[in-house]
Amino acid sequence: MSLLITNIGELVTNDPELGVLSDAAVVADGDRVAWVGPAAAAPAADERLDARGAAVIPGFVDSHAHLVFAGDRAGEFAARMNGEPYTGGGIRTTVAATRAATDDELLASAQRLVREMRRQGTTTVEIKSGYGLSVEDEVRSLRVARQLTAETTFLGAHVVPAEYTDDPDGYVRLVSGPMLEAVTPYARWVDVFCDRGAFDGDQARTILTAGAQAGLQLRVHANQLVAGPGVQLAVELGAASADHCTHLSDADVAALAGSDTVATLLPGAEFSTRSPYPDARRLLDAGVTVALATDCNPGSSYTSSMAFCLALAVREMRMTPAEALWAATAGGARALRRDDVGVVRPGARADLVVLDAPSYLHLAYRPGVPLITTTLHDGVPL
Amino acid sequence: MSLLITNIGELVTNDPELGVLSDAAVVADGDRVAWVGPAAAAPAADERLDARGAAVIPGFVDSHAHLVFAGDRAGEFAARMNGEPYTGGGIRTTVAATRAATDDELLASAQRLVREMRRQGTTTVEIKSGYGLSVEDEVRSLRVARQLTAETTFLGAHVVPAEYTDDPDGYVRLVSGPMLEAVTPYARWVDVFCDRGAFDGDQARTILTAGAQAGLQLRVHANQLVAGPGVQLAVELGAASADHCTHLSDADVAALAGSDTVATLLPGAEFSTRSPYPDARRLLDAGVTVALATDCNPGSSYTSSMAFCLALAVREMRMTPAEALWAATAGGARALRRDDVGVVRPGARADLVVLDAPSYLHLAYRPGVPLITTTLHDGVPL
Ligand SMILES: [Zn+2]
Ligand SMILES: [Zn+2]
Repeated sequence: MSLLITNIGELVTNDPELGVLSDAAVVADGDRVAWVGPAAAAPAADERLDARGAAVIPGFVDSHAHLVFAGDRAGEFAARMNGEPYTGGGIRTTVAATRAATDDELLASAQRLVREMRRQGTTTVEIKSGYGLSVEDEVRSLRVARQLTAETTFLGAHVVPAEYTDDPDGYVRLVSGPMLEAVTPYARWVDVFCDRGAFDGDQARTILTAGAQAGLQLRVHANQLVAGPGVQLAVELGAASADHCTHLSDADVAALAGSDTVATLLPGAEFSTRSPYPDARRLLDAGVTVALATDCNPGSSYTSSMAFCLALAVREMRMTPAEALWAATAGGARALRRDDVGVVRPGARADLVVLDAPSYLHLAYRPGVPLITTTLHDGVPL
Repeated sequence: MSLLITNIGELVTNDPELGVLSDAAVVADGDRVAWVGPAAAAPAADERLDARGAAVIPGFVDSHAHLVFAGDRAGEFAARMNGEPYTGGGIRTTVAATRAATDDELLASAQRLVREMRRQGTTTVEIKSGYGLSVEDEVRSLRVARQLTAETTFLGAHVVPAEYTDDPDGYVRLVSGPMLEAVTPYARWVDVFCDRGAFDGDQARTILTAGAQAGLQLRVHANQLVAGPGVQLAVELGAASADHCTHLSDADVAALAGSDTVATLLPGAEFSTRSPYPDARRLLDAGVTVALATDCNPGSSYTSSMAFCLALAVREMRMTPAEALWAATAGGARALRRDDVGVVRPGARADLVVLDAPSYLHLAYRPGVPLITTTLHDGVPL
């Protein structure tokens, strides 16, 4: 089945750079883009979607999300907004709720968030484990994630669970040994929360190296709370992405700039923890590849809206609207080492979003407004 | 026709204060609330809406919006995000486009924004003129506004139009004389943009006094760009609201605290002009009544989302989630001197919003996420 999207006022292709076309059309054939060009030259197709002059962009690629969990932490959020700092300590609350939930409950909850994301234009989402923190609970978390995305990430090293408080190195041995072995069939990526109060550089290296030997690719939660060793470790080990990058030394920026490691910025986390934002301008000016993602999770960033994160990036991180849109689509694809998403060209996945706006600029210009008219995922309109 | 809303997990009534009830039900009869109480004691009704354990809140009252205009200023926004300051000068761009538009075009554009607001939970909206700035264009702007709301505001004194650049006092005479006379049948309120680059204290006093004599009630755009005379003038003249309140002296705060004038804060404007936010905490601690509104307009704040403004108020202005919700509902009602909206009690308008969330806290906890399941306006579900 082929589909012609016509009467597109402004088409963002990300090919090359932002690649903005006027009066364009796109043909999808099955789950792939078959043709892109001027509306007047569009070939025939089985069906037709009239964009009525609106802007069309590639589907958002949300390369950092924690969607497998139970319960929420609205009360902790309200307390924080009354002045309590964010320490990451509340993760254990979600671990307890997640362990107590059934597989069906975990799947229903994650599915609901993925649907919520689709309605908001996200067509690719990475999903991490990390609220199980036992062999059994990490395996079932990743089984759930695998039903919803190909981009599954093993984050056994999210925090040290309560039962290992007195033996954190024992927990590192578990994560990099039996737990890793059990989850490998369900995970593409391995990730470590390398930060104050979580895992130090040596522990992170042990886990990431073991993950790589097991065939997983690497990503790192790095430098969110302090300027620690996470970013440089990510670069050294060839991780696809160093995520957060809130506190960076000049050496960290230089390391990222000289690497293939993407800096994935998560301004929803700074918004919801009332923390200073990372300096995207500094990274971009140094030549670092920047991605934007939601960090959707019940503790520090419970937004599922890529458009909201894009608007924050423009307001708070000195990205231009064009840089922010690229980072939320093509940048996310780079952070997942994917070349078939985040771009509109023949052969790419037919993941497209029709906006209720004449230009992609409106995503930052009209913050908070639901501007997604239609999400096309694998060629199928939602 | 009566409607029972049942299975409400958390009902915010604003009666008294936030007035949160658990396991509540509401009966609407026609366009009014007929009954509020525990679900187990709910009377019978013709129809039934099952909230499925979700939170229900009063519809948002957006007491400050500029919805009658043509064109947009996405390009000006993008330039500003690249470093150009906001001066208000771009208003004239919108004036030219508005004058060139037909009545039908203006109505269609405003109607689209009102519908967008309804989908986001706003059930009462104030609409200002101010992009016509001639007798004819202000009259047709207010005729359009009158078709969409009872809360219409004459803002001929938005800026001095280009043709009066050399004779601003002549424009003040026009606004407070023939223009006022022509618009009075269509307006409930008169407003002046009293700030640097717009109208000074004397000019504002002339226009507001003339408006009051013509039977209009007063509201003032005050202290957005500098700590000028606007707030104290608003209090002195008994205005219902002083809007923006970004730059306040201690005397301004004291004047507001000793008055019935509401301070209406518009954080969308600070977000989209990258300006410092007003200090809501200072106002609340002084005992000032605070409202939140969108300031929806194509120049300085093109959001239509009260939930977005509420989340900003919590993040940036140190309001608690409870204070922010009250300000976005009951506070807006106070700013419009209405006691039939922004509250859920027998006799009030049946304006209610069902959230896709178990608690109103999620409006701030899940920023950017469209959480409005159903908007009930005058008893009719959208
Ligand atoms: Zn994370
Ligand atoms: Zn205004």
